[in-house]
Amino acid sequence: MEVIRSNFKDNLSKVCEAIEEADFLAIDGEFSGISDGPSVSALTNGFDTPEERYQKLKKHSMDFLLFQFGLCTFKYDHTEEKYIMKSFNFYIFPKPFNRSSPDVKFVCQSSSIDFLANQGFDFNKVFRNGIPYLNQEEERQLREQYDEKRSQANGAGSLSYISPNTTKCPVTIPEDQKKFIEKVVYPKGIHVETLESDKKERYIVISKVDDEERKRREQQKQAKEQEELNDAVGFSRVVHAIANSGKLVIGHNMLLDVMHTIHQFYCPLPDNLVKLTLLCFNILNSYFVSRLLDTKLMASTQPFKEIINNTSLAELEKRLKEIPFSPPKVESAEGFPSYDTSSEQLHEAGYDAYITGLCFISMANFLGSFLSPPKNHVSARSKLIEPFFNKLFLMRVMDIPYLNLEGPDLQPKRDHVLHVTFPKEWKTSDLYQLFSAFGNIQVSWIDDTSAFVSLSQPEQVQIAVNTSRYAESYRIQTYAEYVEKKHEEKQAKRKCTEDSWKEMERKRPAHSSHTSFTGTSTVGKRSMSPIQEETGSDDMEEGEDPEYNQTDSCAEPLPDSKKRAKKFKKIKKEQVPAGSFTSSSNEIFEVPETW
Amino acid sequence: MEVIRSNFKDNLSKVCEAIEEADFLAIDGEFSGISDGPSVSALTNGFDTPEERYQKLKKHSMDFLLFQFGLCTFKYDHTEEKYIMKSFNFYIFPKPFNRSSPDVKFVCQSSSIDFLANQGFDFNKVFRNGIPYLNQEEERQLREQYDEKRSQANGAGSLSYISPNTTKCPVTIPEDQKKFIEKVVYPKGIHVETLESDKKERYIVISKVDDEERKRREQQKQAKEQEELNDAVGFSRVVHAIANSGKLVIGHNMLLDVMHTIHQFYCPLPDNLVKLTLLCFNILNSYFVSRLLDTKLMASTQPFKEIINNTSLAELEKRLKEIPFSPPKVESAEGFPSYDTSSEQLHEAGYDAYITGLCFISMANFLGSFLSPPKNHVSARSKLIEPFFNKLFLMRVMDIPYLNLEGPDLQPKRDHVLHVTFPKEWKTSDLYQLFSAFGNIQVSWIDDTSAFVSLSQPEQVQIAVNTSRYAESYRIQTYAEYVEKKHEEKQAKRKCTEDSWKEMERKRPAHSSHTSFTGTSTVGKRSMSPIQEETGSDDMEEGEDPEYNQTDSCAEPLPDSKKRAKKFKKIKKEQVPAGSFTSSSNEIFEVPETW
Repeated sequence: MEVIRSNFKDNLSKVCEAIEEADFLAIDGEFSGISDGPSVSALTNGFDTPEERYQKLKKHSMDFLLFQFGLCTFKYDHTEEKYIMKSFNFYIFPKPFNRSSPDVKFVCQSSSIDFLANQGFDFNKVFRNGIPYLNQEEERQLREQYDEKRSQANGAGSLSYISPNTTKCPVTIPEDQKKFIEKVVYPKGIHVETLESDKKERYIVISKVDDEERKRREQQKQAKEQEELNDAVGFSRVVHAIANSGKLVIGHNMLLDVMHTIHQFYCPLPDNLVKLTLLCFNILNSYFVSRLLDTKLMASTQPFKEIINNTSLAELEKRLKEIPFSPPKVESAEGFPSYDTSSEQLHEAGYDAYITGLCFISMANFLGSFLSPPKNHVSARSKLIEPFFNKLFLMRVMDIPYLNLEGPDLQPKRDHVLHVTFPKEWKTSDLYQLFSAFGNIQVSWIDDTSAFVSLSQPEQVQIAVNTSRYAESYRIQTYAEYVEKKHEEKQAKRKCTEDSWKEMERKRPAHSSHTSFTGTSTVGKRSMSPIQEETGSDDMEEGEDPEYNQTDSCAEPLPDSKKRAKKFKKIKKEQVPAGSFTSSSNEIFEVPETW
Repeated sequence: MEVIRSNFKDNLSKVCEAIEEADFLAIDGEFSGISDGPSVSALTNGFDTPEERYQKLKKHSMDFLLFQFGLCTFKYDHTEEKYIMKSFNFYIFPKPFNRSSPDVKFVCQSSSIDFLANQGFDFNKVFRNGIPYLNQEEERQLREQYDEKRSQANGAGSLSYISPNTTKCPVTIPEDQKKFIEKVVYPKGIHVETLESDKKERYIVISKVDDEERKRREQQKQAKEQEELNDAVGFSRVVHAIANSGKLVIGHNMLLDVMHTIHQFYCPLPDNLVKLTLLCFNILNSYFVSRLLDTKLMASTQPFKEIINNTSLAELEKRLKEIPFSPPKVESAEGFPSYDTSSEQLHEAGYDAYITGLCFISMANFLGSFLSPPKNHVSARSKLIEPFFNKLFLMRVMDIPYLNLEGPDLQPKRDHVLHVTFPKEWKTSDLYQLFSAFGNIQVSWIDDTSAFVSLSQPEQVQIAVNTSRYAESYRIQTYAEYVEKKHEEKQAKRKCTEDSWKEMERKRPAHSSHTSFTGTSTVGKRSMSPIQEETGSDDMEEGEDPEYNQTDSCAEPLPDSKKRAKKFKKIKKEQVPAGSFTSSSNEIFEVPETW
């Protein structure tokens, strides 16, 4: 269903109802651009840490506009054993509300606009009929404006002969005019209102009213103001409804969607990832952040990783229709149009959200096949999918699969990585030549004069550093040295971050307590593995879902070494067909070879 | 006529032909926004100098996109005594040309977009089918890329058995394979080319060709490359055609149009106004800048000022149909759609350009009524309109009517103006209160903590400064003091500017030599009037227009004092009906009361 400015109000209750009744929600956003600074390849360096990636996206991606928001709600019908789906495609535009409202400036990136144009994107619908919105601060200010206006009106509305700019005492009415004055001044009161004609000309209407009529009009006016305020808050109300619903929110490669949603409809993004999590817990009633799931991360993780080659949304959707997966049973709700996956265009947000939901259902159900007895339907509240909660896929990062919204960053061992600085004339081929003695290398550009170079063997690292000691045109240091220096620069900042974590630990709601981490938060201990500890079944809550008891040990530990990862694969092959998940088979996030 | 990407190439010759045959051209641009910084009222302070205004617009308006360009060409038909008009409405979008081409980011301002949306502006046409463009530097780079590719291809194209990455000497062919090799190697040569399939997959085609065929294919390829280059330069070719035509270019309130046109299709805007003029003379073959005319300035100037109340384009067009003006006789050329001025929407660039042309014709013809004998038709080459050349209207500046592209800034006496700094909490009402003893004042905000305040009498200025001497929360200085301080800060910069003027004087083409100025370029001499000297008929060129001899004294002096201005009005009333313009009746730019 297409939702634009002109039909938004009429359909808002339909949207809220769909959110309320849903088992899970899928979302997708379309933006006016991706990066206003570096090229996308520099924006997504292969050795970014999650914090670095967050900082880059915050700096270079937030001036674009999220101008289409797709929401697809999925509700499971147990009798019919199928999902009932409602899809909404919202067009968003920050139409200035009145003369004093914010006049938003946003950036467009030609390549992104051209890409969307080629998909048939309707820009006229956005700019002519997009739904407005306000963030929380703007909403607060507007509310204040109304309150102030009202209190002024109340003051001015009381009967008085005092003219504000002259004397401060009542006017003395000459004897001979008293009769006339008494005739024109209505005993009970007057009502003053400023109106605007069709031609935007403003005029004042003064009516004589009695007390009752005056109250009625004031209530009417107040109701009208409340409606205007609601109209101005606009699409943000849908986002609030999603956040407050506590429902699982699915996205595909959703980091930018989440960041834009917070930035555009809540508040400017916080300084760092820890504060971001804190923000989500504080503002969004502890719900939003505890219930995000990224299908791209899920598809890139065991047990899917081995059987899914291409995790792009279009390819994933195709793959998940084939063995060993089963196409999900999903139908459009009555009165909602259905999508035809064989002909529809990708990159319409509503459609992409729909496809994302389909992918999630297929993958969740596939996890059920490992249960004993196997289950065809795995619900959005199943413990089986909890390991994927609040971990957002990190595009093009080589050795960190996700950005964790529930704990410190993962910190992979990067003992095979070098940081190289060189003259700005150098090209990739110069780096290949410099390291030609070391066999295969991988180059990740940072900027014009520096790059990470990963060697195939960690043992080569010291040799490379040693041989470069007297070089003049370039400089090589180990990744550890590079991080150490950066760390020193940010010492003060980091201190604040650690304090914030402690604060967050205090505020974390009980239902998240099963996720605890031993991940190190200081860089000095980098040689430790970035492992999250397994937690026993003790920490688990009893759930209303019958699967809960079967899968109580399905928490989210990560293997702590290459050796252990290999062992895991072996165990999994032996055990999974035989019975329920065991503690050691829960190591679903495969660790890259480099860890 | 609507010109978009898909019909641009087919219509380009039609556009160029229209430009070539025209007597004058009218242009108009639509932008994605106006100001990315201060509000429009702060962007256009009433006491900006032309240089300051240029700097502000350069800083805050150039990140927007000029995405619709209207061009209307007018050719006078002497037999039929009417203009033949051809109108073009170009949609512009910087569609990336290939992977290495610039990925332009531009800003959109919600209020501007909303305004255009309300006028029915078609954003889909811009983004889906806008004509691309390159500025001169981008064009040069692309040309270089092609040249480099070609020279590489020529090298690799020569017959050779040398494989580049192995040994540097010819491969030795084993005896038993010689026969086979001779069979497969075509004696005359091969042709290699990289092609792209419909699915954007790249592949190589190797064909055996003889010398003649190879040459033919190379020429074909070169022609194709030239065409690709032309396509990429796109709309910039129209702008070049306009600039090189030497035709008079009319616009309404055209400063931003001119700045955007240079910025988007030529090069980044120069540091200051002097360099801007230099640029125009250098790059645009001395033509562009010597042939601009702003109808808003014309309508705000004598003899129009007195009889035209509202100079907004829509109101001006209406006014100029009425007595004492005559609606111009204009017809669309065959095959070109005509506009209906009673029903058309403003703010479509092509239509606005058309209306601007109509206004110019009416006003020019009105000037002819003062001739003896009166003339109904005043051509675009008439000396009568030369006083208006290259002076661009300055929005909302109180005492400087125009930005002069042919000489130093006008420098009005601002001896009734104060510069006031105060706490950021202050509002306009605080300033009114502060100066309540001085009668009527005018406040022009500079930023949150400073404003210009103009008093009604220059004599009050010193009193205000004196009484404020011991004030703590605010500070008052005279305009002269304010400028002096700013001047000191910019001393070094100013030096360079003066040198540039000297250079420009050397480069100024002969036909502009009738405009010389005594305007002071140093601020210290501010008490001098900003007057352009009258020039005798000696300086005039002989023209092909019969009016030239009648109006040889119609240069462009300005009155140098209030007194003189009053005298001028008197003389004009007496003399105009009687005969031709006299030297003293040429003072067409009325001087504001404050000079």
